[in-house]
Amino acid sequence: MARFRLGKQTIVLEHPPTILSAAAIGGKKEAEGPLSGHFDETSRDTKFGQDSWEKAERQMQTLALQAVLKKAGLQACDVDLIFAGDLLNQCISSSFSLRDAGIPFFGLYGACSTMAEGLALASMTVSAGYAQRAMAMTSSHFASAERQYRFPLVYGGQRTPTAQWTVTGAGCALVGADGDGPFVTTVTAGKIVDWGIKDANNMGAAMAPAAYQTIAQHLEDRKLQPQDYDLIVTGDLGSIGKRIVMDLFDRDGVPVQNVYDDCGVMIFDAKRQDVHAGGSGCGCSAAVFCGYLFRQLQQRRYRKILFCGSGALLSPTSTQQGESIPSICHAVSVEVERS
Amino acid sequence: MARFRLGKQTIVLEHPPTILSAAAIGGKKEAEGPLSGHFDETSRDTKFGQDSWEKAERQMQTLALQAVLKKAGLQACDVDLIFAGDLLNQCISSSFSLRDAGIPFFGLYGACSTMAEGLALASMTVSAGYAQRAMAMTSSHFASAERQYRFPLVYGGQRTPTAQWTVTGAGCALVGADGDGPFVTTVTAGKIVDWGIKDANNMGAAMAPAAYQTIAQHLEDRKLQPQDYDLIVTGDLGSIGKRIVMDLFDRDGVPVQNVYDDCGVMIFDAKRQDVHAGGSGCGCSAAVFCGYLFRQLQQRRYRKILFCGSGALLSPTSTQQGESIPSICHAVSVEVERS
Repeated sequence: MARFRLGKQTIVLEHPPTILSAAAIGGKKEAEGPLSGHFDETSRDTKFGQDSWEKAERQMQTLALQAVLKKAGLQACDVDLIFAGDLLNQCISSSFSLRDAGIPFFGLYGACSTMAEGLALASMTVSAGYAQRAMAMTSSHFASAERQYRFPLVYGGQRTPTAQWTVTGAGCALVGADGDGPFVTTVTAGKIVDWGIKDANNMGAAMAPAAYQTIAQHLEDRKLQPQDYDLIVTGDLGSIGKRIVMDLFDRDGVPVQNVYDDCGVMIFDAKRQDVHAGGSGCGCSAAVFCGYLFRQLQQRRYRKILFCGSGALLSPTSTQQGESIPSICHAVSVEVERS
Repeated sequence: MARFRLGKQTIVLEHPPTILSAAAIGGKKEAEGPLSGHFDETSRDTKFGQDSWEKAERQMQTLALQAVLKKAGLQACDVDLIFAGDLLNQCISSSFSLRDAGIPFFGLYGACSTMAEGLALASMTVSAGYAQRAMAMTSSHFASAERQYRFPLVYGGQRTPTAQWTVTGAGCALVGADGDGPFVTTVTAGKIVDWGIKDANNMGAAMAPAAYQTIAQHLEDRKLQPQDYDLIVTGDLGSIGKRIVMDLFDRDGVPVQNVYDDCGVMIFDAKRQDVHAGGSGCGCSAAVFCGYLFRQLQQRRYRKILFCGSGALLSPTSTQQGESIPSICHAVSVEVERS
């Protein structure tokens, strides 16, 4: 069996599970962005028919879960395990959306790395034979995040140029032991990296070193070059974090620009949509992966990608107490053929 | 390999990992309680030498991690993966305490079920061969929890009789592929259960049905009677939740009282220590398991226990919005011999 070796962080899955189905939900702004055609459902109502933004966020998870099951022709009782989490305090979007699902549930907190973390653990669980089918799910909502992390929306706080815009969206993916791919082939579990960035409005810069570390470690562990992937995609560093990652690889003499992109850059048209440095939030990489990227893999437009979920593990309290921002990045390789 | 079957929630670990080492840290009140002799370190200083309660909480995790490594004769670089989380918003106790550890880290949110969830995932990971050694860690602090969830301490808010007292404590356990036990033999992943309790000061009542459901499912999956265990221990329902669990099993004609106890009841002397319904918080079951219970297993005073971590997955926001309390319980069986 695949085991860690000294200095290695990459687990090679012995029985690569198939991503059987995936679904992405988006809000109004996301539906107006470049990935417009790649959501399973969107809503022009920021509350998704609910009476609060918190309930709207959990409703997106419910919609994502239902869409995945419908597309896979399965019911909730056919799913053995779900890994889910979100940005709201105590991860209430996940726990409340799963209240009636009856699926054994392991709760995660990985900030914006949650989709990659969940996909990693669901895939490890299925590959090991602990579950026949397992899910990963997460969400974020601009308005519920804004009022929890920053200011009441009515306050109209000014945003700095480095700030990112929390995506209103959710993603859910179902992996199974049997299927014809796309296959989750390896998992690189991230370490916490903190280069001392203290500006909570510049999370791209805080997370970039973690993304760089995980991608570099993955390539080293697997003895690969960036060009061995059709796409290496982080989520969600935004334009500033993306540039830092490219600079760090350039410094190493390992150019990545031809194969590298970031979910926070891809989901919005930064200039037209006034999102400053790009998208963020658990829902950002979740919706991009479970919507656009999964379809590209299904249609074999991409044959091998490295999906790298990056998370800034701060809280408003840690920021107020003057702390820097510990960050993490988990990577999952997805291939249309078993390697 | 062990797989879920329809209606089953219990994973039988094919290669039961050994708990190589475990450590418990406690505060002043915990050091004065019935389990006084079973902590690796305690402090009379509620701030553990730090300048805030949040930093004190993460310091307890640091101390727990160091104690485990020291007892196992290992260094952080010998650990392949850690699963950790806590109660503070965005789980900052875990992310900050692990900032310099350099251990690949999967963040969890399971409220007070975190120790059981982490032990479950660490054990699954090691049994599958993904890691040679993996850790589970969590913490809670009375003062950091009180001001986040309820009132500023200086406000002197009155506590209701059903309220529990958040334990100031941390626990860390290290599991490894090789060793002579105690062995983690099975994992029962919990489903969310919500029977409609809305009183955030009665979390024992909210969590009891989840604990009952998971224990009953585990016994059914494994075709066991409660008496097949030396101890079935929940953490942390407190005295009210404990009584509800016993009532629910009584109703089924399955008496558990001779083998059943609760970490929230065990950690304090409720009358002498004025803790009302007992202890709570991630640190409660973590410290009881990693301190007292692990020593009983090592000394073979218990040969087979079912450790059931229960968590109330609410937030102050969900309570303010009038929601009931979704709860969960994950169970892990630990045996001194491979069964």
